[in-house]
Amino acid sequence: MANQKITSRNVDFAKWYTDVVSAAKLCCYSNVKGCIILEPYGYAIWEKMQSVIDSMLKQSNHQNVALPMLIPENLMKKESDLINGFAPEVAWVTQGGSEKLDEKMCIRPTSETLFSDYYSGIVKSYRDLPIKYNQWCTVVRWEKETRPFLRSREFWWQEGHTIHATKEEAMEEVNFVMENIYKKFFYDYLAIPAITGLKTEKEKFAGADYTLTIEALMYNGVSLQSGTSHYFGQRFSKAYDIKFLNKNNEWENAYQTSFGVSSRMIGALIMVHSDDDGLVLPPKIAPLQTIIIPIGSAPEVLNLALKIKDQLESKNISVSIDDSSKSPGFKFAAAEVKGIPVRIEIGSRDLENGHITLVRRDTKEKITVEKDSDISLEVQTLMEKIQTNLLTRATKRRDEMTYTAKTFKEVQEIMDKNPGFIKASWCGKSECEEKMKEIKGLKSRCILKDEKLISDKCVVCGKEAHDLVVWGIQY
Amino acid sequence: MANQKITSRNVDFAKWYTDVVSAAKLCCYSNVKGCIILEPYGYAIWEKMQSVIDSMLKQSNHQNVALPMLIPENLMKKESDLINGFAPEVAWVTQGGSEKLDEKMCIRPTSETLFSDYYSGIVKSYRDLPIKYNQWCTVVRWEKETRPFLRSREFWWQEGHTIHATKEEAMEEVNFVMENIYKKFFYDYLAIPAITGLKTEKEKFAGADYTLTIEALMYNGVSLQSGTSHYFGQRFSKAYDIKFLNKNNEWENAYQTSFGVSSRMIGALIMVHSDDDGLVLPPKIAPLQTIIIPIGSAPEVLNLALKIKDQLESKNISVSIDDSSKSPGFKFAAAEVKGIPVRIEIGSRDLENGHITLVRRDTKEKITVEKDSDISLEVQTLMEKIQTNLLTRATKRRDEMTYTAKTFKEVQEIMDKNPGFIKASWCGKSECEEKMKEIKGLKSRCILKDEKLISDKCVVCGKEAHDLVVWGIQY
Repeated sequence: MANQKITSRNVDFAKWYTDVVSAAKLCCYSNVKGCIILEPYGYAIWEKMQSVIDSMLKQSNHQNVALPMLIPENLMKKESDLINGFAPEVAWVTQGGSEKLDEKMCIRPTSETLFSDYYSGIVKSYRDLPIKYNQWCTVVRWEKETRPFLRSREFWWQEGHTIHATKEEAMEEVNFVMENIYKKFFYDYLAIPAITGLKTEKEKFAGADYTLTIEALMYNGVSLQSGTSHYFGQRFSKAYDIKFLNKNNEWENAYQTSFGVSSRMIGALIMVHSDDDGLVLPPKIAPLQTIIIPIGSAPEVLNLALKIKDQLESKNISVSIDDSSKSPGFKFAAAEVKGIPVRIEIGSRDLENGHITLVRRDTKEKITVEKDSDISLEVQTLMEKIQTNLLTRATKRRDEMTYTAKTFKEVQEIMDKNPGFIKASWCGKSECEEKMKEIKGLKSRCILKDEKLISDKCVVCGKEAHDLVVWGIQY
Repeated sequence: MANQKITSRNVDFAKWYTDVVSAAKLCCYSNVKGCIILEPYGYAIWEKMQSVIDSMLKQSNHQNVALPMLIPENLMKKESDLINGFAPEVAWVTQGGSEKLDEKMCIRPTSETLFSDYYSGIVKSYRDLPIKYNQWCTVVRWEKETRPFLRSREFWWQEGHTIHATKEEAMEEVNFVMENIYKKFFYDYLAIPAITGLKTEKEKFAGADYTLTIEALMYNGVSLQSGTSHYFGQRFSKAYDIKFLNKNNEWENAYQTSFGVSSRMIGALIMVHSDDDGLVLPPKIAPLQTIIIPIGSAPEVLNLALKIKDQLESKNISVSIDDSSKSPGFKFAAAEVKGIPVRIEIGSRDLENGHITLVRRDTKEKITVEKDSDISLEVQTLMEKIQTNLLTRATKRRDEMTYTAKTFKEVQEIMDKNPGFIKASWCGKSECEEKMKEIKGLKSRCILKDEKLISDKCVVCGKEAHDLVVWGIQY
């Protein structure tokens, strides 16, 4: 079986994306409409993501729990904004075995309602707070249009749900998770220079007081909302009766948050780093960090391969030897398509000259190394370089595709050339936000609270501006 | 809040069980009928189980994937035994958003159908085989009666699904998973001397050629089916068209298996080892292996606590210091209820005498240790002793409760005293199996293939016996 051909990303980005997903065997469509199957390699990336985020959450005193996947309609309805937001897109269970249910239940599209109901039963005093729980699960949303990793009827995520004794502490949690967990994970592990900020009223989560978001810019200039963190105030705690005795011995409703990131991050990883030869993975998130390809079957070649494998494993670098009967060229391409950060080629002729070759997946650069040196040190250094280079390269690209505009006309001119992030001032009115959509569907990605306004006038109506907004077209 | 009172297990075993579950905060009922919430401590035990089994599966070349949770009715119906077996107990989704679905879908009660459908699309040649995939997920079965961990409408499990080029290889897989993964896990980690064997035709999984099972005996003599491994032959591969070109270049249907263990194992863990003071956990599966309880707040006490914590952590022993303001007695009871294997008490008076006290959770034995010795070595040895003792104790109990019977009357006499495992010969006829139910609902647990018959006559009809069966009443 020859390697699958990948369309060039500059020719047809959408086709390139699905070609990469399929050639790298990350996921495939199932016979369940709108649902994907995470294949071993895609799932291995998800496991890596889970393991890093899970330990970041645990280090900051979050604990894992697991709640039911079904939500009875009456429980869902207690918070009306939430049901209104999700009702058009939930799957309803109406029958159990051969019996019609008295009350239908939906498969969770998200679990604020269930966590709220649970919390109302276990909180008594401010001494019980904060409670910071998280669950890893799938959720179902009845989407019409689907796309691998970006939008499917069922997807994989973590959802954190916390309650606190004070507003300040809850707000700090919302911010902490966004800045110290999600953003850190995007920069340090995914090598994606994502931006964070506040969602506008129109774009915030149904039921939230406010929503923070992390937005990443793809290679083609399209934005991807990649994670959110919500502050609910007392809205759910009033609807679901989550009360505690505060320090003054008075009943008070708890202050609540929720936050989540999903398998959508795999889509971001592909569309930020990968190229026409397939996947490019940052070493810190790659399920397999190195592959050794022996060229020919001379015993000294295979022995050296095994020796290097041992060296790498002793440094906790994941490694595999491809000693299948396929041709070296085929194996190189297969390693590239999977985005394995470092490829190690060992050939008889090279050995005679006393060296072997390391190949970087990100730049394709070949590095000749003394065969008797400690290869694991070379690989370690190289992986650090690759990790850094991916972030630098993506940051450069993001910056090149980040524009500023003072007028509606300027926005149109930018968007006629290249999409990207457009920074522009905004008055805060939803009419102006709505008007921006006329330009290729531009939407506010987020409000940047700490940056100076581009202009003191709204980019749409020209009236006094209050916020600096990043606009972009979205997946 | 005082520690919750636990009913004695010899007074009311069922009440004792739910008391322990609730006092140790393992899980609680949700407002979704028949569904439980895994609370942090219960989930932490499940994570420990997952991590061990996951690595055993990976070491034996199984790979994780994730399939959709929904199964369209027509896909489910292709294999008629399976739908007949599960139809009375699945949850049906009939509505997506506000639209009625053209075809209803069930939430997976198990995923043979989806895996088969997936495999039919990815297998071409014997070179692609074996494929050994596994998924960690929840499944839903519309049970009428539920019990924490033992039976609930949604539960947590792993389901492995493999296909092979030969019958022999598939059968070897069924056996390997049962003996080298499940049974090993029960003995080496859970410290539960479970028995393995073959299910009778009546008790095997719908659609399987045969089913191997692992059965554990609870403290009260009731059996718990704790995991199964199935051989399907070509049944599903014919129904779902999983074909490969064999070495003779002919199309052949693949040979298939599936196997699973679930959060039910937490129930087994409780009912085998725990006592009237709460949970007792084997050190290898305990989320927290040691707890240090400083008595009083003298600086030398706290300093020593911190020093011991460091020592333990350097040996990868999990540890926590309970320096809350509660009384020592309360803390001791709280550590006991959670089943923490080793408790370390440090008091000022003890320190003056140059020692501290270790307390084993399994025997309550107190061990005095030099305060300046390397406590981590003492704890390590103690944990090994506890792990061994729990298995020895449970094995002794299992053997005491394992009876042999040659006649129906003998079985009745045994069951009038104590339930347990009853070994008795069987002719192989389902009428005789059915007849055994008259004695307090006795069912065949499994057929032991390698043990000698107790008698050459069937325990029920007295005709020629072929199999040695272990009988028991079940959860």
